[in-house]
Amino acid sequence: MSEKLIGSCIFGQSGGPTAVINASAYGVIKTALEAEEITKVYGASYGIKGVLSDRLYVMDEEDPEELRLLLNTPSSELGSCRYKMADPEVDDTDYKRILEIFKKYDVRYFFYNGGNDSMDTCNKISRYMESVGYPCRVMGVPKTVDNDLYGTDHCPGFGSAAKLIATTCMEISKDTNVYDNGVINVVEIMGRHAGWLAASASLASAYGFGPDLVYLPEVDFDMDRFLRDVDRVYKEKGKVLVAVSEGIHYADGTFVSEAETSATDGFGHVQLGGLAAMLADAIRKHSDAKVRGIELSLLQRCASHIASKTDIDEAFGAGREAVRQAVAGVSGKMVAFERETVDGAYHCKYVMLPLDTVANYEKKIPSEWINEEGNGLTEEFIDYVRPLVQGEPDLPLVDSMPRYANLKKVLAK
Amino acid sequence: MSEKLIGSCIFGQSGGPTAVINASAYGVIKTALEAEEITKVYGASYGIKGVLSDRLYVMDEEDPEELRLLLNTPSSELGSCRYKMADPEVDDTDYKRILEIFKKYDVRYFFYNGGNDSMDTCNKISRYMESVGYPCRVMGVPKTVDNDLYGTDHCPGFGSAAKLIATTCMEISKDTNVYDNGVINVVEIMGRHAGWLAASASLASAYGFGPDLVYLPEVDFDMDRFLRDVDRVYKEKGKVLVAVSEGIHYADGTFVSEAETSATDGFGHVQLGGLAAMLADAIRKHSDAKVRGIELSLLQRCASHIASKTDIDEAFGAGREAVRQAVAGVSGKMVAFERETVDGAYHCKYVMLPLDTVANYEKKIPSEWINEEGNGLTEEFIDYVRPLVQGEPDLPLVDSMPRYANLKKVLAK
Repeated sequence: MSEKLIGSCIFGQSGGPTAVINASAYGVIKTALEAEEITKVYGASYGIKGVLSDRLYVMDEEDPEELRLLLNTPSSELGSCRYKMADPEVDDTDYKRILEIFKKYDVRYFFYNGGNDSMDTCNKISRYMESVGYPCRVMGVPKTVDNDLYGTDHCPGFGSAAKLIATTCMEISKDTNVYDNGVINVVEIMGRHAGWLAASASLASAYGFGPDLVYLPEVDFDMDRFLRDVDRVYKEKGKVLVAVSEGIHYADGTFVSEAETSATDGFGHVQLGGLAAMLADAIRKHSDAKVRGIELSLLQRCASHIASKTDIDEAFGAGREAVRQAVAGVSGKMVAFERETVDGAYHCKYVMLPLDTVANYEKKIPSEWINEEGNGLTEEFIDYVRPLVQGEPDLPLVDSMPRYANLKKVLAK
Repeated sequence: MSEKLIGSCIFGQSGGPTAVINASAYGVIKTALEAEEITKVYGASYGIKGVLSDRLYVMDEEDPEELRLLLNTPSSELGSCRYKMADPEVDDTDYKRILEIFKKYDVRYFFYNGGNDSMDTCNKISRYMESVGYPCRVMGVPKTVDNDLYGTDHCPGFGSAAKLIATTCMEISKDTNVYDNGVINVVEIMGRHAGWLAASASLASAYGFGPDLVYLPEVDFDMDRFLRDVDRVYKEKGKVLVAVSEGIHYADGTFVSEAETSATDGFGHVQLGGLAAMLADAIRKHSDAKVRGIELSLLQRCASHIASKTDIDEAFGAGREAVRQAVAGVSGKMVAFERETVDGAYHCKYVMLPLDTVANYEKKIPSEWINEEGNGLTEEFIDYVRPLVQGEPDLPLVDSMPRYANLKKVLAK
């Protein structure tokens, strides 16, 4: 057992939001408010930017019932940022400023919630505080819809996004069958470098209504093969549902969405716009079917109304665990998830991962989970994703509309 | 009380689907199966096309529990069509064929579920059967997400679409606030000629998080004014959420989505694609903000996971009422909704409307429900839409994924 460290804490949110990032916020804030070692709980306004600009909200001032609503409130409630910190050896301006703020508020605990880049920030702050001999425990709390964080079975945020995607694909699959004349729907799904989210669409197929074809960044894209695939399914079934990751690229690495294509409009102009629109256009040139491109867009990261209860619980748990571990003496770690089977059922165990092993590395889908044709997922992937979408959120409602947290956000003096 | 008419019935689905069109199907089928006057219940495959091609499913063969799942199954389960029938005075080929099929299966009841065009079909069939002296009771069951059917307070399907739109706009509104640097999100919503769906986005604003600006087809669009509106809100709040109906048009009637605009890409090419993308591009030329176009697309008509319970109940009720009334002797009518206040609460009353007063007429938003600036809705509209989104669907799930009806679809011989 480490020495007791008494002082205040700062919590910050970083990077793109998820449907459950505020559940992690609640996990950190609630546990910190209850910890006797932690004297005051501050929330940084817009992540590390709020620390640098001395804009900290006093969480102790908030109504506990409003804080609890964070479990089902989408977006980053305290505000987020995408701020890349310099290496402290190169430029320590920001770090000196952070130390100044830490001293001003007697901060002895720092919790940062984010993806790859944010864990890098977290790691740098941890090393800097150590190097200057300022006692402070720094912990990373993971999040990312993309599910590409290294060293953890999965990431908070992914399960809810996967659930929105799979459910929506089931609904769109039904809609694709409305008329007797063919329809081809192409659904574009988030994921620039890893295909976890697009792959989740295949969960819909496992329940009877889902995409016929799934394309991922893990497999080099071939436009001719793609058009042949679509044509084959169309001939077979008279309708096609395609799920495609925004990050698909040709063998030379060029993103399909950015490549100059032969797809031009009636005036000979290049058709711009999203990947779904571009692929729909490419199909249209070879097919009489009605073709539609659909982007799930922001809904993937903010649809808290259909969040996974498992995901909410684990996101909360990750935040809670970060505080518990820090209070017990741990520092420089990210809370990671290990999958266990307990009494034949899925169970999620929290483990502590050194921050420097997580930062700046992207986890992809194992190739053995992708079918031989490179246009679908295997049963192993379904078994992987299924437990993560389980359980319905207990969404607080007023007149059937969501009731989100309404924080006072009292600034620290 | 009319004479008892004994015979079989055909039910068909027509036009674009809604999240609850199958709830009306269940209302018709269940009530018809229970009615002693109705000897057999047929479901037309792909609407009137299934009658013409003699493809009828025998509903009596279905498992009652599977039929019940229709309450929460999106899309048109029997298949739909967009088939425009000729006037019987001009060309009666189709009508003769329908009469032949009606005689073959001893059809004495015909129920057709759809929007404007489908009520026109229904009306023509009703008049034809009367003109040839074939006793048959023909009833229309309304549906349309667009809510533009004349003579009814609202349409089955609208409440669920409105709920998906309002909830999603709340979530996107939260997401619009994630970063401290500005974001402008433009959400494109269905509705070619009437703005009921785009207007529903304003329900989100009534609950604290929604669009700052709403543009409807009921108001002539002015690009300069639009850009000024966006700029004003951006200067005020640092972020903007815009909801826009796909059917907005300039004063000369040209749809904004189809107009040749000055919006060109870096190569001087005209930017094609959806309206949201086009408006986003127009804003980008005047703003440093991150601008994003979002199309809610098909989700508006198939998101049964967030359907309104009120809408499901009323859709079911409309189908049930059509059968009850027909059995009691009514024909040539559409079931319409009248809004009542009972004990201070919203109540929906079913009334019968002559089919020829409904067909081919579109109902728009009353001008007094649109604000003076033409970019938002008044409290009267909120009061109108609020009761229609109430109640959560009791969605049957397997492993947290929707469990849809799985019908046998046994073809009649």
